[in-house]
Amino acid sequence: MSKLKNISGFPEWLPEQKIAEDRVINAIRRVYALHGFSPIETGAAELLSTLEAKGAVDKEIYLLKRVHADQDSEDPLALHFDLTVPMARYVAQNFNELVFPFRRYQLQKVWRGERPQKGRFREFYQFDIDIIARDELPLCCDAEAVTVIDRALTEINTPAYRLRINNRKVLLGFYRSLGIDEAVRKKVLIAVDKLHKIKEEGVSAELSGLGLGADLIQQILKLTRVQVAADKIETAFDGLAVSDEMFAQGRNELLELAALLPEATKRNVLIDLSLARGLDYYTGLILEGQIIDHPEFGSVCAGGRYDDLASEFINKKLPGVGISIGLTRLVDFFFTHKILQADARSTSEALVTVYAEEQRRAANDLADQLRAAGVASEVFYKSPKLGKQIDYAESKGMRYVFFVGGDGGVEVKDLKTKTQVRVDNITQWCQNRIA
Amino acid sequence: MSKLKNISGFPEWLPEQKIAEDRVINAIRRVYALHGFSPIETGAAELLSTLEAKGAVDKEIYLLKRVHADQDSEDPLALHFDLTVPMARYVAQNFNELVFPFRRYQLQKVWRGERPQKGRFREFYQFDIDIIARDELPLCCDAEAVTVIDRALTEINTPAYRLRINNRKVLLGFYRSLGIDEAVRKKVLIAVDKLHKIKEEGVSAELSGLGLGADLIQQILKLTRVQVAADKIETAFDGLAVSDEMFAQGRNELLELAALLPEATKRNVLIDLSLARGLDYYTGLILEGQIIDHPEFGSVCAGGRYDDLASEFINKKLPGVGISIGLTRLVDFFFTHKILQADARSTSEALVTVYAEEQRRAANDLADQLRAAGVASEVFYKSPKLGKQIDYAESKGMRYVFFVGGDGGVEVKDLKTKTQVRVDNITQWCQNRIA
Repeated sequence: MSKLKNISGFPEWLPEQKIAEDRVINAIRRVYALHGFSPIETGAAELLSTLEAKGAVDKEIYLLKRVHADQDSEDPLALHFDLTVPMARYVAQNFNELVFPFRRYQLQKVWRGERPQKGRFREFYQFDIDIIARDELPLCCDAEAVTVIDRALTEINTPAYRLRINNRKVLLGFYRSLGIDEAVRKKVLIAVDKLHKIKEEGVSAELSGLGLGADLIQQILKLTRVQVAADKIETAFDGLAVSDEMFAQGRNELLELAALLPEATKRNVLIDLSLARGLDYYTGLILEGQIIDHPEFGSVCAGGRYDDLASEFINKKLPGVGISIGLTRLVDFFFTHKILQADARSTSEALVTVYAEEQRRAANDLADQLRAAGVASEVFYKSPKLGKQIDYAESKGMRYVFFVGGDGGVEVKDLKTKTQVRVDNITQWCQNRIA
Repeated sequence: MSKLKNISGFPEWLPEQKIAEDRVINAIRRVYALHGFSPIETGAAELLSTLEAKGAVDKEIYLLKRVHADQDSEDPLALHFDLTVPMARYVAQNFNELVFPFRRYQLQKVWRGERPQKGRFREFYQFDIDIIARDELPLCCDAEAVTVIDRALTEINTPAYRLRINNRKVLLGFYRSLGIDEAVRKKVLIAVDKLHKIKEEGVSAELSGLGLGADLIQQILKLTRVQVAADKIETAFDGLAVSDEMFAQGRNELLELAALLPEATKRNVLIDLSLARGLDYYTGLILEGQIIDHPEFGSVCAGGRYDDLASEFINKKLPGVGISIGLTRLVDFFFTHKILQADARSTSEALVTVYAEEQRRAANDLADQLRAAGVASEVFYKSPKLGKQIDYAESKGMRYVFFVGGDGGVEVKDLKTKTQVRVDNITQWCQNRIA
């Protein structure tokens, strides 16, 4: 007999959980589509060289290898680790077929070949939106991306969350104003990105290792302590007398962005100058979403603005902004905290019982009438005692059980209200039922 | 700049094609769910040993290899090549949590590491249903699987097709009645399975190579010539005086199955005793769907009955029946033959124009009103001349363009009827529009 063991990091749901996950997916998709984002899908595999062109440095990538091939003459293929790099490649490749601004959503699994460890998935869904324009992308697109993600998270009943927002130009301009060399500035970003993991002490040590003096380190840490609600954004820059053009641009972008957000979204936004985001390609807005009462959960969503992601693939300027919801992790969190109910073990609302095999055709016909009226129905596969069939309906979470009498008369039992009535008009019953 | 080349065999759609593919997916999913099949998803990767336990012999499997790992200490992982083997593993693994009969649908990509060649995909969607019972699975489940697949294919406007049906017991019992050894019978099946590719001459040669004499070969070929419509099934066995218990059982199963099918499905069914199906695990019903005018296209769907697929993984008898629709290939065929329209390049029905940036908030508010009434809407991202904005709506396939006047009054242009009217009540307009 084959080994039956869980593959660590590849989560699988029971049917009742998958039905619940699909509800979440459909709710997010509806929000995305209502805002005019269109679906695309890219292949699970990319050329390894494509993945390495942007951002792949820190990722553990899964290479594909044909089991029966002695050696692959082709370029190596690898599973994508996010949906942003494949989307950039797709946009460049289909440039002449797409209408810009290109607005897409994308729901696909991504893979990260990390060492197996608790709470880390190696296969998970991401659910992204991005807007890509030609040459110039106004800040209203950043505001729209933030707004749509906020609405999606609200729609799926995410517990109180905070969208932490910063701008790379604020950080890099600030570091420049301190006289830090360009090559070192990115390393400072990477150190600051670890703040929540290694605390100020750890960041200090790393910055010190980069050759920065105590005074510079104190100023860098001071900036990370700035956290203000979006409606108080003007106060974020109080006491920061920085004369740097990039810093000023980043600050103005943050101010303009906040002004463009609808009130409901603004309430969930925190301007947080400690946010740095490790990934290389962001050039303006950066964002991370956190559940307020569960900071240990990490980020619910993340994203930002990139000005030249597709320039690796095409000689065009294609600035973009995008945010990704970490769907599988979020759904897993919802199950753990009972935010998402996984109670229906079947898509069926109704079971049609069969008291004898001669009656199966009549039972099938009744089920077809129910389906035609939109009620998902199933006919029991055997004809044991009716009690056994009712038990089955109950154990699968179906609410209604139908009985076809010898005279062709139909009765239905509501397992919730424990009542049984005769049904003369199936279609009418379907319309009037409490679904 | 990175190389930009198509990865052969990994098809990707443009947004308008993906929107169309999603319509097909939703239509099939609706049929499956209306019949009480529930969704599951399994990991893209399985232990290589799981895949090799059943059916993997002829498949080119993609192994996963961590790019930064010097050597993997874990068992090798590989991408699944179909959804049946993973489902069997899933059922065995979750045996105590599932209610039987277990009825699931599963839509996922599968991967085959074939050599790249025209018309062969290496990544594609399969969309499967299966029913798995404990100990015993009555034939009404086979009939249901055939019926549901027939209804799904009809629902998505598949051109005239034929569900070719046979029973493994008919073939194996017939070969036994000819005195062919058990070990040779399976090889005969594999040779007969190639009939449409290598014709009778080629099959003869292979059978001859197995040591069968000319008379036996003629009888085997004669059986493959039996093709009758489902409502003439009684005539299928005319002149076949075979006294073999397994043959008789297979024949009776076919007769009973045909009797259990609703008339609409029966019309699409052909009893075809040439059908053998290469895969190892089928034990009763076998099925393949073909488009009548396009035999070159190969099979639209395929499946059958297996009595012991999960027994590799668990010490229980779990007979099942399942059929898989080759979704990606079918959608590709639909595009090629213009059966599926890919005209809308956006999910948006309406564009809200912006004649000046000061007016963006009013435009956003209008778009939110439209969305609240279920009309997917997008606000133009800049504020150029209105003609340019209308061109954009047209190029993305949106039907309606909204204008917010300086007085707050709203007008809408219908790009199809070329009419423009004032809208006083947005919600009412949404209800009355022609979507």
